[in-house]
Amino acid sequence: MIAQDTFPVEPWCVRENRLDLGILGNTESVFALSNGHIGFRGNLDEGEPHGLPGTYLNSFYEERPLPYAEAGYGYPEVGQTVVNVTDGKIVRLFVDDEPFDVRYGTLTAHERVLDLRAGTLVRTAEWTSPVGKRVRIRTTRLVSFVQRAVAAVEYVVEAVDAGARITLQSELVANEVLPEQSDDPRVAAVLRSPLVGVEHDSGRAGATLVHRTRASGLQMAAGMENHVEAPGRVDVETHDAEDWARTTVVCALAAGERVRLTKFIAYGWSGLRSQPALRDQVAGALSGARFTGFEGLLREQREYLDEFWDSADVEVEGDAEVQQAVRFALFHVLQAGARAEGRGIPGKGLTGPGYDGHTFWDTEAYVLPVLTYTAPEAVADALRWRASTIGLARQRAGVLGLRGAAFPWRTIRGEESSGYWPAGTAAFHVNADIAAAVERYRVATGSEALEGDGGLLVLVETARLWMSLGHHDAAGRWHVAGVTGPDEYTAVVNDNLFTNLAAAQNLRVAAQACQRHPDLARSLGVDLEEQASWRDAADAVHVPYDEDLRVHQQCEGFTRLPEWDFTVNAKYPLLLHSPYFDLYRRQVVKQADLQMALFWFPDRFSDEDKARAVDYYERRTVRDSSLSAAIQAITAAEVGHLELAHDYVYEAATVDLRDLHHNSADGLHMASLAGTWLALVQGFGGMRDTGGQLGFRPRLPHGISRLRFSIRWRDAKVCVDVRGQEVTYTMRDHGSSVELLHDGEAVTVRAGSPVVRPLAHVEPLLPRPVQPPGREPAHRQHGLGARPPR
Amino acid sequence: MIAQDTFPVEPWCVRENRLDLGILGNTESVFALSNGHIGFRGNLDEGEPHGLPGTYLNSFYEERPLPYAEAGYGYPEVGQTVVNVTDGKIVRLFVDDEPFDVRYGTLTAHERVLDLRAGTLVRTAEWTSPVGKRVRIRTTRLVSFVQRAVAAVEYVVEAVDAGARITLQSELVANEVLPEQSDDPRVAAVLRSPLVGVEHDSGRAGATLVHRTRASGLQMAAGMENHVEAPGRVDVETHDAEDWARTTVVCALAAGERVRLTKFIAYGWSGLRSQPALRDQVAGALSGARFTGFEGLLREQREYLDEFWDSADVEVEGDAEVQQAVRFALFHVLQAGARAEGRGIPGKGLTGPGYDGHTFWDTEAYVLPVLTYTAPEAVADALRWRASTIGLARQRAGVLGLRGAAFPWRTIRGEESSGYWPAGTAAFHVNADIAAAVERYRVATGSEALEGDGGLLVLVETARLWMSLGHHDAAGRWHVAGVTGPDEYTAVVNDNLFTNLAAAQNLRVAAQACQRHPDLARSLGVDLEEQASWRDAADAVHVPYDEDLRVHQQCEGFTRLPEWDFTVNAKYPLLLHSPYFDLYRRQVVKQADLQMALFWFPDRFSDEDKARAVDYYERRTVRDSSLSAAIQAITAAEVGHLELAHDYVYEAATVDLRDLHHNSADGLHMASLAGTWLALVQGFGGMRDTGGQLGFRPRLPHGISRLRFSIRWRDAKVCVDVRGQEVTYTMRDHGSSVELLHDGEAVTVRAGSPVVRPLAHVEPLLPRPVQPPGREPAHRQHGLGARPPR
Repeated sequence: MIAQDTFPVEPWCVRENRLDLGILGNTESVFALSNGHIGFRGNLDEGEPHGLPGTYLNSFYEERPLPYAEAGYGYPEVGQTVVNVTDGKIVRLFVDDEPFDVRYGTLTAHERVLDLRAGTLVRTAEWTSPVGKRVRIRTTRLVSFVQRAVAAVEYVVEAVDAGARITLQSELVANEVLPEQSDDPRVAAVLRSPLVGVEHDSGRAGATLVHRTRASGLQMAAGMENHVEAPGRVDVETHDAEDWARTTVVCALAAGERVRLTKFIAYGWSGLRSQPALRDQVAGALSGARFTGFEGLLREQREYLDEFWDSADVEVEGDAEVQQAVRFALFHVLQAGARAEGRGIPGKGLTGPGYDGHTFWDTEAYVLPVLTYTAPEAVADALRWRASTIGLARQRAGVLGLRGAAFPWRTIRGEESSGYWPAGTAAFHVNADIAAAVERYRVATGSEALEGDGGLLVLVETARLWMSLGHHDAAGRWHVAGVTGPDEYTAVVNDNLFTNLAAAQNLRVAAQACQRHPDLARSLGVDLEEQASWRDAADAVHVPYDEDLRVHQQCEGFTRLPEWDFTVNAKYPLLLHSPYFDLYRRQVVKQADLQMALFWFPDRFSDEDKARAVDYYERRTVRDSSLSAAIQAITAAEVGHLELAHDYVYEAATVDLRDLHHNSADGLHMASLAGTWLALVQGFGGMRDTGGQLGFRPRLPHGISRLRFSIRWRDAKVCVDVRGQEVTYTMRDHGSSVELLHDGEAVTVRAGSPVVRPLAHVEPLLPRPVQPPGREPAHRQHGLGARPPR
Repeated sequence: MIAQDTFPVEPWCVRENRLDLGILGNTESVFALSNGHIGFRGNLDEGEPHGLPGTYLNSFYEERPLPYAEAGYGYPEVGQTVVNVTDGKIVRLFVDDEPFDVRYGTLTAHERVLDLRAGTLVRTAEWTSPVGKRVRIRTTRLVSFVQRAVAAVEYVVEAVDAGARITLQSELVANEVLPEQSDDPRVAAVLRSPLVGVEHDSGRAGATLVHRTRASGLQMAAGMENHVEAPGRVDVETHDAEDWARTTVVCALAAGERVRLTKFIAYGWSGLRSQPALRDQVAGALSGARFTGFEGLLREQREYLDEFWDSADVEVEGDAEVQQAVRFALFHVLQAGARAEGRGIPGKGLTGPGYDGHTFWDTEAYVLPVLTYTAPEAVADALRWRASTIGLARQRAGVLGLRGAAFPWRTIRGEESSGYWPAGTAAFHVNADIAAAVERYRVATGSEALEGDGGLLVLVETARLWMSLGHHDAAGRWHVAGVTGPDEYTAVVNDNLFTNLAAAQNLRVAAQACQRHPDLARSLGVDLEEQASWRDAADAVHVPYDEDLRVHQQCEGFTRLPEWDFTVNAKYPLLLHSPYFDLYRRQVVKQADLQMALFWFPDRFSDEDKARAVDYYERRTVRDSSLSAAIQAITAAEVGHLELAHDYVYEAATVDLRDLHHNSADGLHMASLAGTWLALVQGFGGMRDTGGQLGFRPRLPHGISRLRFSIRWRDAKVCVDVRGQEVTYTMRDHGSSVELLHDGEAVTVRAGSPVVRPLAHVEPLLPRPVQPPGREPAHRQHGLGARPPR
């Protein structure tokens, strides 16, 4: 875990005041920059020391064998792993003949600031070399949101007390040595040196390296162009080789003088385009960057972010840590998805190699819901990517003996890459989650354009999948047997409630979409009979319920399973200390599953159902997944446990800033970060758009005095300002209006006429539930009270 | 499949009239010789051509990595694989300067005969070399039942038409080149050359090679001694190297003259004893063999088998093929278990490397039941081996968070070696199967000695395992959640009926055994409270039943799962064409599971229950496992479908002689072979000893006119002769008597006073059930009728 004071609480920055090499891997993730296409981990400019060097291009991967002790039909044999591509971030510094390395000499000051409005990582350092020469360094790094192929570094060195010869080496480095990524020697071998040199070339102050992967057949180019401003004579030369290129800048500074290196970096990759095309693409991007200039890039970056924050910002008064954390979270969610453009959004974004760089259901179920209401263009892109993989998903369904399309549990390019089917292929709910994201986009934007552009195809083919997965019983109820729901501690079950309801919604939504697009539906072979069969199955869906305990069952029979014995094993995460066998057969829940259903399908449950379900499942949910806390926050808020919700919001928000899961060094938890927004807006804001009807049920915990957020809704922005005992709804765009429900009451809000309503008083039906031993969330009220004044 | 006329139907032999190189791998398995300690595949004397060279020492294995695409807690990381050890069978022949190789020259006659009473493999060949020299060859091979470390070959060559120089090379060869055994290059590397030379030594006509494995730390020695009889001058010399030793015999034969080589071979291995000890052990065994002489070994072998057949033979009149097959089956079951002495009995015996040479539940559930009533000494040995692994089983239980002992699903030495837990570790019924074998031995032999010698420990520790696996529900019923029963197409389920009843019996039997051995029980920490808890759980066991369909459920909810769609996939075995995901969630059964429960726990079901269950599950059982047909034969016979039972008996009996599963080349299916006996004796004989009461309900199908068998029961032999419409019970040992049930009627049979009783007429309650498409067993009546006269 990262100490609470590592990152001081500030509203718009994440700042590290002194360098802690013990958490370098974590801070590299926290300070990662990305635009969804290029990802730079927050490595020190000079490359080392490092936790893990990381430079990623979205969907640039290598294939690797997936081994099995006992093989089985339909097991994927080839996996996909994100590749650490050519590192363009590196700028090495020599002071006289001493390399700048924080482990040597004396580091008298070191600060890194991730500026959430500027979109930059700024580092300042003051360093005295082993022989006593003092320099000040200030570097500014950005990955451009506006120029998708471009990143840039400004590197400024000042000689402080005495003159010094300064040498800067601005580099491109391919095949950096990484810690072994697998115990399997074959896999490690594949990933040890994944790039094969294709071409290298340099000019006076720039260079290009072109590489390809060995197995996946992808080609990439990285280019750099360096500009130097220095007071006196400057020598600049560039050398290149297969796996590196280096522009060397040498100059002499008098005390107080500075040299400034500006490095433009560009990347391109393709599985189709030729080597010259890639090389020229990179050259073109560099030309554009040079034309814009570093200051121009900074300006564009801020303008882009200003617009984003204007739509997306969430203001949280009373809890400054959550305020900072939700902005940090939104910034990274934006970084992950902004310019993915036809590629997936990985579970870790482009912040680290965790989960092999794979995209999961997290994207559609956590990240896209946030972007739908804050940056919907990115959602359309992401869903077009899913739709573009429909061929592979159809193939996969065919292999599995199913109809329609079966999207992968984890993938980079679209092929199923899960090597453990009970927690992979069996988790078919990913298909309904994708369909839900398509529908959510339509409902929120009011646009049917995506449906024509692959969306309907996704809805139809997932509906067909569900029809082949489900079956009717003798009494006519519709069931889905043998699948795994969101809870990975309960696998391969019958009638997972979340999956059943999500499948039913998938079917219903697909039928409705076909009615909206009859010609397109016909072209996909959907006739009226098929649509009717979807509606009928959806209407007949089985919802497992324990009549004796009066509680919904996560799956059929769940409430009759033996309980987990926490006196025997309460070491978390449980999966590192107990076999799947025992986890699966007991009433122990890794992550919100039935509670996910309460959140997604609120109309399906009475208030008492919800209260009883939260009470029941809270006691059995260990939150060994970072996907859980945010959903538990939402359902806790819904049933009136506002303080508990606040505790969970804090947990979701700080998963990476505090490294709660001890693995943020491998990359940030995008779903949890996105969940912070969900928890605030859909938890405390009570925002829902079930059935296309926007509504809010705002309510605040004691520790939050004001919550203000906007959502984008049908070309307009709805601003919700919850403060004290009232809420103010405002339409911010001239001429816009919206019909919404405030706590169930219909309200029309027009631009220029804010509507104020009192908050409803919420009294929970049941007492605050307890959690499994050792899994009670940290009490936020204590945290707020106990925090020392700053 | 092997053609029906490959092995002519003879009562006491399996004969191959001409060499078919296309089925060489199969015939090597069929003609394998073993005594349970040494195993020789039926490779041609000259080593090649071969399907697969194979020489095995029971439990001599190498370790290999078990890889996982996604690792999990408790997954075994080291597997065990049987090793092809130093081959002592090889005798190469040169006629003048031409090597005898059946692929060259002209083979005018070739016959191999496995003599089930002699315990030998005799080969005769007449071969004309490429230059026209004709020789007759007759070789006799045996693996001694009496001298456990010894095998021998007699090799006789006769010059037929003209004189010839004859050279014989009698060899020991280590690290024979085998087909790659794994797609995983690491595993293949381990197994490619598993033996490391330790010592090699030779005299004039013999040699010894000592090797060790690289990882498992086992050491083995192989020795040979050659004796030659030839009419004139003979040169004999021996060379040795690390991986081979060769005694060369050269002589000149005139037309009609013969040379006779006798080769004694001895093996020893140990994980503990020293290299000199092993070397001397082998030398000692060779001395013993030489002292006995080849004729002496033949005589001992026949005497040993005479005694076995006297107890074990099953006579089947009317179906000569089944007659031959059941003797072939019994011979191989004996070979697998006779002298295992403190080692496991692998699923393939020592006939091939299939299933990595692992021992499964097959041993206790199929092989030991046969041996219990025919060769009970071998059963005590085999169960002592299980008991000797209790330490590893306790460790495994500990890793899994369970109490007691969890025996492995598959292993050589005792460690769990299953790399897929849903069809491995989760199949906890293996523990109840082992306990049942301990109890069966006690009941049949009347001896409590084994209980004191590890048996009670096994019963107690497995009972404790079940108590930690099971749980009581609110109504007090006892359940076992999340385990896999015998049917591997339905995994990780709640309340598998067979498992529940087997667990309950395990608990009950353990409690009874503790009452018999109170001091020993106390020393194991078992008090009266613990015994009471076992009985209580056993009495409260839940037996899933579908009230609507009035049929027992294979597991809770089984009858509500979707059906398999045979119009979509009826390609067998299904697991090669469909994912586990789909197999698990549907009502499709790989192998007898609920029917196994009907067989093992007959008192738990009414006649109508049984009839309905057979009807229900027959329709859904695809018999993709060779373990199924025999059990289906037994339950079919029980409910009166005698012709169906006959069909299944034939299928079980010919699994290897006809290669019904297309994999007999990897080794014989010991469980199915053993099942042939079970099906005849417990199916048509209706033999049961439920609750310690021996009983019979004989009934014959149309195609079998007489069935006669003996079983060993409490130091005596009970002979049952079913013929026409009556059965004769005879006690064969002077002064012996037994109380038995004939069709429920108490009968006392005394030596000298056979009891004759009429057969009961059996009218099935329901019509003959159908099987899944393409899985109806071959109709035996047609086979009998259509067989051409001989």
